[in-house]
Amino acid sequence: MELFAVPDVPEVGPGDDLAAVVRERVDLREDDVVCVASTVISKAEGRQADLSEFPAGPRAREIAANLEAATGEEKDPRFAQAVLEESVELLTESPFLLTETRFGHVGVNAGIDRSNVPDHDLLLLPKRPSESAERIRAGLPADRVVVTDTCGRPFRHGQRGVAIGWAGTRASRDWRGETDREGRELGVTVENVVDELAAAANLLAGEGAGGTPVVVVRDFEWGDHGGSDEHFRDAGTDFVRQALRGWEYDG
Amino acid sequence: MELFAVPDVPEVGPGDDLAAVVRERVDLREDDVVCVASTVISKAEGRQADLSEFPAGPRAREIAANLEAATGEEKDPRFAQAVLEESVELLTESPFLLTETRFGHVGVNAGIDRSNVPDHDLLLLPKRPSESAERIRAGLPADRVVVTDTCGRPFRHGQRGVAIGWAGTRASRDWRGETDREGRELGVTVENVVDELAAAANLLAGEGAGGTPVVVVRDFEWGDHGGSDEHFRDAGTDFVRQALRGWEYDG
Ligand SMILES: Nc1nc2c(ncn2[C@@H]2O[C@H](COP(=O)(O)OP(=O)(O)O)[C@@H](O)[C@H]2O)c(=O)[nH]1
Ligand SMILES: Nc1nc2c(ncn2[C@@H]2O[C@H](COP(=O)(O)OP(=O)(O)O)[C@@H](O)[C@H]2O)c(=O)[nH]1
Ligand SMILES: [Mn+2]
Ligand SMILES: [Mn+2]
Ligand SMILES: [Mn+2]
Ligand SMILES: [Mn+2]
Repeated sequence: MELFAVPDVPEVGPGDDLAAVVRERVDLREDDVVCVASTVISKAEGRQADLSEFPAGPRAREIAANLEAATGEEKDPRFAQAVLEESVELLTESPFLLTETRFGHVGVNAGIDRSNVPDHDLLLLPKRPSESAERIRAGLPADRVVVTDTCGRPFRHGQRGVAIGWAGTRASRDWRGETDREGRELGVTVENVVDELAAAANLLAGEGAGGTPVVVVRDFEWGDHGGSDEHFRDAGTDFVRQALRGWEYDG
Repeated sequence: MELFAVPDVPEVGPGDDLAAVVRERVDLREDDVVCVASTVISKAEGRQADLSEFPAGPRAREIAANLEAATGEEKDPRFAQAVLEESVELLTESPFLLTETRFGHVGVNAGIDRSNVPDHDLLLLPKRPSESAERIRAGLPADRVVVTDTCGRPFRHGQRGVAIGWAGTRASRDWRGETDREGRELGVTVENVVDELAAAANLLAGEGAGGTPVVVVRDFEWGDHGGSDEHFRDAGTDFVRQALRGWEYDG
């Protein structure tokens, strides 16, 4: 399996055809997986925004005030408003805003970025990343597209690449019913392949000014396994989410 | 960047020299990253165990009884005893046992596996995976070793490869103080590279009878960045852990 970054991707702006950008720069094969950083998809889809577009309501002002008190840092209530508008549920309000986005992803600040956004205050995540993936895929000779973002997680330090959308592939490889080397049924049953692909791609994309938002994974073999498209846990079976609902930060 | 599985790794048993096994099968380069599934390290280190070695105390019997009630499945109190002995903290007791292992990793059942373990009931995780990584590294021409496991996580469906030990590399790439394409300071600051390498390796290692526990990552470039070795969050700053401490499963 080989990974390489698409070279010389220009600064991406509203209306840009990302599939064309990629197509013109690499000879893709049908079975390549094209991993695209959500940041450039957002830019192409016009998801740049300014704080002035989010006049803060009373809830956002309350959240910002609590965050200021908890962190000792200045917090713009308009930013809280933007996070609220991008979210369907707030999991924590303090000491940071952890929410579920409209498409089911749980992340800090609804994944709104303030880095790599020219001429605007904010970059919102793509509205429906799997639809974005499908649109890009339609313009590529490659069959599979994964939309990535970088975010943190409980229990483990630091951030890593994750998949927030995908097309042309199942999200997970299903080992259910298969047996181990001893013929015993497997413990691990559902391997989230798109998250693993996103993590791998992130090693090359990086987080900074590198300018490498698109990474091609070549010769990844799915193997003879089933697949499924569950990806974000639903609230009903997510015990950590239930625990967070009943929790309050006490300093 | 290229990844390939080490071919023809035999069944690993107590006392085996994993570095020799790898060395004899691939021509490693100094800057290769060798990712080794914890399962074969455990086997080499004699971490196979039988349930009879874990006579259940009252706490384990209570936990197993609660798990049976919550799940409707039969639970062996000796398995609960094994998990207790491998753990320093129980984060949830029901509907599954989520614990912190003695080396700081948070996982279900303290990472004890029942798959791919010949002639024994259980395979415990390596006692100190980063020390295992260092021992293997000492016998290899490659400079970097990552010990992997597969486990689940909050918010996201399925399992994926993670790093539980490492040697010859820092755990995370540090983007702090660096700027984005606009010269603005970065939002994402600490990229957990060993977790991303483990996720990438897992795409090739798989979860089943494949027999590919060692994956080489070639031509991964760290780049001109600092690094740090924080990896498992400590309890004091892990809000999800705090929330779980106050939570109880109610069916
Ligand atoms: N060529 C190019 N690279 C970009 C652009 N925007 C971001 N990047 C690069 O994309 C990669 C990922 O950026 P990041 O802000 O971490 O994106 P995210 O992980 O999707 O939030 C980095 O290498 C950035 O330098 C752009 O418009 N053009
Ligand atoms: N060659 C060989 N492969 C093994 C052995 N034990 C496990 N594997 C393989 O190692 C890979 C990872 O196994 P898994 O049980 O998921 O390990 P874990 O992720 O570390 O818990 C799979 O490809 C297994 O078939 C062994 O003793 N020899
Ligand atoms: Mn982002
Ligand atoms: Mn990123
Ligand atoms: Mn395991
Ligand atoms: Mn595994």
